[in-house]
Amino acid sequence: MNQSLDNKTLKQMDRDHYLHPFSNLTEMKETGSRIIERAEGVYLYDSEGTKTLDGFAGLWCVNIGYGRDELADVAAEQMKQLPYYNSFFGTTNPPAAELAALIKDVTPEGFNHVFFTGSGSESNDTVVRMVRRYWQCQEQPSKKYIIGRHNAYHGSTIAGASLGGMGYMHKQDEGLPMQFVDHIEQPYWFAEGGDLSPEEFGLQRAQKLEEKILELGAENVAAFIGEPLQGAGGVIIPPSTYWPEIQRICNQYDILLVSDEVICGFGRTGQWFGCQHFGYTPDLMSVAKGMTSGYLPMGGVIVGDKVANVLVEKGGDFNHGFTYSGHPASAAVAVANIKIIRDEELVEKAANDTGKYFREQLATFADHPVVGEVRSIGLVAAIELCANKETREFFPNQGDTGSLCRNFALQNGLVLRATADTMLFSPPLTISREEIDELIAITKQSLDFVAEHYGMSNG
Amino acid sequence: MNQSLDNKTLKQMDRDHYLHPFSNLTEMKETGSRIIERAEGVYLYDSEGTKTLDGFAGLWCVNIGYGRDELADVAAEQMKQLPYYNSFFGTTNPPAAELAALIKDVTPEGFNHVFFTGSGSESNDTVVRMVRRYWQCQEQPSKKYIIGRHNAYHGSTIAGASLGGMGYMHKQDEGLPMQFVDHIEQPYWFAEGGDLSPEEFGLQRAQKLEEKILELGAENVAAFIGEPLQGAGGVIIPPSTYWPEIQRICNQYDILLVSDEVICGFGRTGQWFGCQHFGYTPDLMSVAKGMTSGYLPMGGVIVGDKVANVLVEKGGDFNHGFTYSGHPASAAVAVANIKIIRDEELVEKAANDTGKYFREQLATFADHPVVGEVRSIGLVAAIELCANKETREFFPNQGDTGSLCRNFALQNGLVLRATADTMLFSPPLTISREEIDELIAITKQSLDFVAEHYGMSNG
Repeated sequence: MNQSLDNKTLKQMDRDHYLHPFSNLTEMKETGSRIIERAEGVYLYDSEGTKTLDGFAGLWCVNIGYGRDELADVAAEQMKQLPYYNSFFGTTNPPAAELAALIKDVTPEGFNHVFFTGSGSESNDTVVRMVRRYWQCQEQPSKKYIIGRHNAYHGSTIAGASLGGMGYMHKQDEGLPMQFVDHIEQPYWFAEGGDLSPEEFGLQRAQKLEEKILELGAENVAAFIGEPLQGAGGVIIPPSTYWPEIQRICNQYDILLVSDEVICGFGRTGQWFGCQHFGYTPDLMSVAKGMTSGYLPMGGVIVGDKVANVLVEKGGDFNHGFTYSGHPASAAVAVANIKIIRDEELVEKAANDTGKYFREQLATFADHPVVGEVRSIGLVAAIELCANKETREFFPNQGDTGSLCRNFALQNGLVLRATADTMLFSPPLTISREEIDELIAITKQSLDFVAEHYGMSNG
Repeated sequence: MNQSLDNKTLKQMDRDHYLHPFSNLTEMKETGSRIIERAEGVYLYDSEGTKTLDGFAGLWCVNIGYGRDELADVAAEQMKQLPYYNSFFGTTNPPAAELAALIKDVTPEGFNHVFFTGSGSESNDTVVRMVRRYWQCQEQPSKKYIIGRHNAYHGSTIAGASLGGMGYMHKQDEGLPMQFVDHIEQPYWFAEGGDLSPEEFGLQRAQKLEEKILELGAENVAAFIGEPLQGAGGVIIPPSTYWPEIQRICNQYDILLVSDEVICGFGRTGQWFGCQHFGYTPDLMSVAKGMTSGYLPMGGVIVGDKVANVLVEKGGDFNHGFTYSGHPASAAVAVANIKIIRDEELVEKAANDTGKYFREQLATFADHPVVGEVRSIGLVAAIELCANKETREFFPNQGDTGSLCRNFALQNGLVLRATADTMLFSPPLTISREEIDELIAITKQSLDFVAEHYGMSNG
């Protein structure tokens, strides 16, 4: 269909009419957009014919890589059969039912139900609706506060942006965060750990939750929400002491524990869900992204028995949902995608095969003069750029160095993301060793470029 | 893919694992679901082989009807080319750019920009984020209240459910409505008009907005949001005096006017957008549903020049968006869908052709003993069931009669929706005269059944 429009026309249409998400709208009117035209495996091709290795899997989502035509065929087949029907009013559709059962099969024991949404944001909104309804059914309606963390990301709806702790989002909206949400400090040892060991620091930051619960009153707190590792915040991997202590505190004060698995879910960490890597058991898991590998929009909340049993046995009506909850085409694509992840053992690959190789290769950068820390799990990683490795001091004008590095990488054929001066990696789980070599080579060039820029080369 | 699972297995999977939206979860564990297996034109077919006329277009969304295989082909082609890429970080994709320009072509003058979302709920969340950012850029950050209406529906996220005025949703969540949202009474003449003429009542209810603005202080009010007609609330069509007065008040107090076009947009009222039918000019329009006819999930906010110019010229970064904003497959399907609506003149048909026939046929029920009012625009309509036409008195246990009528219609081959005792109609815009005849015939049987139930038959 688009073949009829040339690139110049498309660029003009985009510039004139498309307000882009999370973008500088003023600058974009000047610069316009780069058109991504097609993709195959781990590679993107833009309208100028430039080939780029996507080290970021679209936006933490294309777990199975691009070009899996069988998902397109599944979508088309379903759309010809039944393109849409709602799941309200006692009706269902075959792919939604099948998907609900398949998700049960790949989740830890005790997760037997799913509520479908259209995105990770809608999943976290559903979490808020569901945990408050749960406590209402338990005759503890005062339990309505949800505690999140600074520098966490939970989506961009009002609830998502509120649960998240992104200052740059809160500053743009005089109504954020919404009421009944509070935040504690994050377990970001590299930037905030000071003289503590990672283990000491992890424990200390987990105990901030206990302090906050006591401050608000446990009778007013419904849930704690956290990403297993903070993705957009900078692939912040908490010290090993962190999650067990969070679990202990939630249990002790009867607070629901919500794991935001939108990034970690469906294999990213080398386990099906990030909570399995860190060894905690949440009550609810919000998912999206890897659920369909982004091929079609979909999200969900996977509901543990503790909450599901209450909603089912004494909840009656649950007055919440979306037009596209259980969308047949999205559900069919999710089923096909999850079967690929399962049958091609992509989770295992992320843990022990290509993922291990990726982590070993990245780890060699720990000695690079501009690198303060390399951290990784499965196929997700971060490199901290800093001016002084010993003192963990960042470069001046934090963010500039990350942009410098990211732009250099992009010009040399690799998509990375920078959060301030932290370089983030999240390639498709299908990435091969040869492609990892390419990713590593361009990363090395980019780090060398930063070192040269600051006169810190070691060669 | 689903052919491998038999219906019994699918039903069991659904019952065991799928928490349905807006459903009684306790009852559904007993009753299970009806599986909608395929659809064609205006007809649904379930797994028992039962054929049903869908008088509700899925959920106010399947404007072009089922079985338009070209949309499946467009989706598959796009998914093979580029199944996903984000629109963050200065990148775009061909269908998203084309769709932005196409939307501009079908919207009223002064609407030149669009922000893409994944659903109507996300669109209304975006409205909140955007209007508060707009006033911040205008150096009036205190303008953060948004005024909605009782019995309005604006989605099911925390923001959507807050803007909406559905008591049954607010009652289930101790945190709803969120702060900085307030509500005024609705323009529902049949139920609340008392002795006033519709015109007097419409004016009076519009002036509630002025009272509320004065109560909150205009310097604290960002926007008013309303559906052109309240859809889920009961296809409540405001008296002709209502919208002009709302527009006057918004202009006078410098309040942004937001038209929630999720149901009305893309032809439902016999105009491209509902605001065009009612003759007002909003600053923002939230859309979804008819944008893709539900074939794939997508939504958006269509932004008028007043707001867009400020965001573009002095807003800089707009820190808001979704992973699936501008999703390539959804955008490709939206383009194909909007071209069908345009090229097959479905808007015109809803206004003057089959829509006119539909409205004329429905109007004949005004004399039916259990009917208090028939109201309709384009291809959307409501019939009020009531015990006394003169006094507009409802039957006892409001809601029971609507359910009775809806269930009878369903058993006799027609999907309708009941809001309390108001029967709602919203068939695909492609419905033929013969299919309208069938819809009308089953509706008549259903009304007769209600009359007989109450001993009010006129025959």
